[in-house]
Amino acid sequence: MPRPIPTAEELADRLAAGERRALARAITLVESARADHRAVAEDLLARLMPKTGASLRIGLSGVPGVGKSTFIEAFGRTVTERDRKLAVLAVDPSSKRSGGSILGDKTRMEELARNPAAFIRPSPAGGTLGGVARRTRESLLLCEAAGFDVILVETVGVGQSETAVAEMTDLFVLMLLPGGGDELQGLKKGVVEIADLLLVNKADGALEREARRAAAEYHGALNLLSGGPDRVWAPPVQTCSAVTGAGIEEAWETMRRFEETMREAGRFEDRRAEQAKSWLHDELAAGLIEALKRDPATADRLPAVEAEVMARKSPPTVAAKRLIEAFLAGGR
Amino acid sequence: MPRPIPTAEELADRLAAGERRALARAITLVESARADHRAVAEDLLARLMPKTGASLRIGLSGVPGVGKSTFIEAFGRTVTERDRKLAVLAVDPSSKRSGGSILGDKTRMEELARNPAAFIRPSPAGGTLGGVARRTRESLLLCEAAGFDVILVETVGVGQSETAVAEMTDLFVLMLLPGGGDELQGLKKGVVEIADLLLVNKADGALEREARRAAAEYHGALNLLSGGPDRVWAPPVQTCSAVTGAGIEEAWETMRRFEETMREAGRFEDRRAEQAKSWLHDELAAGLIEALKRDPATADRLPAVEAEVMARKSPPTVAAKRLIEAFLAGGR
Repeated sequence: MPRPIPTAEELADRLAAGERRALARAITLVESARADHRAVAEDLLARLMPKTGASLRIGLSGVPGVGKSTFIEAFGRTVTERDRKLAVLAVDPSSKRSGGSILGDKTRMEELARNPAAFIRPSPAGGTLGGVARRTRESLLLCEAAGFDVILVETVGVGQSETAVAEMTDLFVLMLLPGGGDELQGLKKGVVEIADLLLVNKADGALEREARRAAAEYHGALNLLSGGPDRVWAPPVQTCSAVTGAGIEEAWETMRRFEETMREAGRFEDRRAEQAKSWLHDELAAGLIEALKRDPATADRLPAVEAEVMARKSPPTVAAKRLIEAFLAGGR
Repeated sequence: MPRPIPTAEELADRLAAGERRALARAITLVESARADHRAVAEDLLARLMPKTGASLRIGLSGVPGVGKSTFIEAFGRTVTERDRKLAVLAVDPSSKRSGGSILGDKTRMEELARNPAAFIRPSPAGGTLGGVARRTRESLLLCEAAGFDVILVETVGVGQSETAVAEMTDLFVLMLLPGGGDELQGLKKGVVEIADLLLVNKADGALEREARRAAAEYHGALNLLSGGPDRVWAPPVQTCSAVTGAGIEEAWETMRRFEETMREAGRFEDRRAEQAKSWLHDELAAGLIEALKRDPATADRLPAVEAEVMARKSPPTVAAKRLIEAFLAGGR
C-alpha cells in the first residue's frame, strides 16, 4: 500500500523543524516524475524559499579512484566537529537507484552515515544530466531549509556534470591524484580551470613527495593559464590525505577563506543571483521546448528538423523559426 | 533613395557565381533587423545550404595588442598564395558600424583588403553577443556558398565571445604575447583551454627568446591540464612573427594537419553536426522566450520574475513553470 502524500504545509513544518524523515520524503517528491508528487514538491519549495540560502554550497569532483568518498568521510568529521550540519548530495546521471551512484553505497561512508549532524542522499536515479541536476538543485534548497550549514554536491564527472555542479554551488573543489600528467588522462578539458580549490589527495606514505610535486606543478600551470583582469581569488592547490586526515582541516579553512573573500568583494551573493537567473532561463527554455514537443502542431517534428540541420539541409535559424511559427499558430 | 531589395533567387545565383557585391549585399540583409530583409535573407540561406560546408572554419582570438590584424595580413598572404580564397569575419559585440570593430579599420589590413582572393567584413554593428554571433554564423555560410575555402572568424574576446566563436568554427586559434604571466592578465579563465592551436606572436628581434620560453611554458601547462581520455589532438604551441612572417606558413601547415587528423578520427563532421544541432536548440530557446516576451499574457512579466528568483523569493523551477503555463494558456 503506497504511503499517503503529506500536504506541502505539513511537510514544510516538519522539514523546517529539522525532521530528517521529512527531508528525505521531500527529496523523494522532488525527484518523482508523478504530477501529483511534483505539485506537492513545488508548493513545498515555494513555501520554503525564505528559509534557503544560508549554507555554503560546495561542489566536489575528481576522477574515479581519487578518493572522494574517503575524503567526504574525513571532511564530514572536520565540519561536524565544528558544530556545522553537513548534507551530501550527488549528481551522477549514470547512476541507477540500484546503486550505481557514488553515494548509493553507504558502506563507503559508514561513519558519516551514522553521524546525526550529517545527511547523505544518493544521486537521483539515472536520467539526463539536465533532469538530474535540476532535481539536485531543488534538493539543495530543501537541505538548506532543513538547517544544513554546509552542502556538498559530489559528481563523478560524467559528461558535463562538473559544469552543472559548478553552476549550482558557491565553490568548486577538484580532487587530483599525485603525480599529475599521465594519471590525469581522465580529467576533462577545462575542468581544472573551473576549480576554486585543487586538492591533491593521497599525500601520505610513499606518495607524499609526489603529491607535493604535483601540487607545485598545478600551481604553476594555473598561474600561467587562469589569469583574468578582475580575479579576486587565485585558486590554491593544496595536498591532503583523506586516510591520515592530513590537510583536511586546512582545506576547510581555505573554503571558509574563499567565502569571506568573495563576500567582501561582493561576489558571493552576485554569483548566486546570476546562478538563479540562468537556472530560470534554463527552465524556461527546457519547458518551452517540451511544450513544443507536446504540441499537436509540432509534436515529433523536432528530431526530423534536427536531422535536417545536422545534414546541412536547412539553416538552423530558418528551421527554428519555422518550427516556432507552427507551434505558435497551432492550438495548445 | 533606398536600393531595391533583390530577390533571393537572383542574389543566390550572383553569390554562387562568386560576385563579391552580391555577397556583401547578402550579408547586409542577414544583419538587417528589418522583417522584409530577414525574409529574403532566410530564403537565400535556405537556397544556398547545399553549397555550404566546404571551407575550413578558423576562430582567432587574443588580447588587444597581440597583433591579430598584422597576423591576418600575413596569414592572408600565405593562404591566398596557395590558391585558396580567404574570408575574414568578426564577432565583436562592442563594435559600432562607425568603426569600433577590429576589422572596421581597413587601413590596418590594406594589403588584404586589396587582395582579389580575400574578402573582409567588419563585425555587425553593436548588439548582444547572441545577436552578433547568430548573424556571423549566417554570414559564414554565405561566404562558403560564395566559394571561400578558408574562413577566419576573429574576436577581441569581449564577454563570452571566444566560446561563441569556438562553437561556430572547426579550429580555435589563440594568439599570445611573449613572456606570459603578467602580460596575460587580459586572458579570460578557460580561454587557453578551448584553443586547438596557440601562437606566441612577436617572436622577432629582442623578443624572440622570450617568445620561445613562453611557448615552452604553455606547452608544459597544457600538457598538465588538457588531458582527456579521448583526445586525438594535443594543441601545439608555436611561435610566429606577423611582422617578419616567420612561423606563419608553419601555423597554416598545423591548421591543415589539424583538419586531417580530425577528419581521420571522424571528429570533423561530427563536431560540425553537433554545432548545427546546438545552434538549432539555441535558436529555438531564444525564439520561444522572445515569443513569451511578446505574448499579451506574459509580456513584461519576465523581468519581474527574474528579480523574484534572484531575490530568492521563488524557486526558478516553479517560477518558470507558472510563466510557461500562463503563456500556453494565453492567446497568441
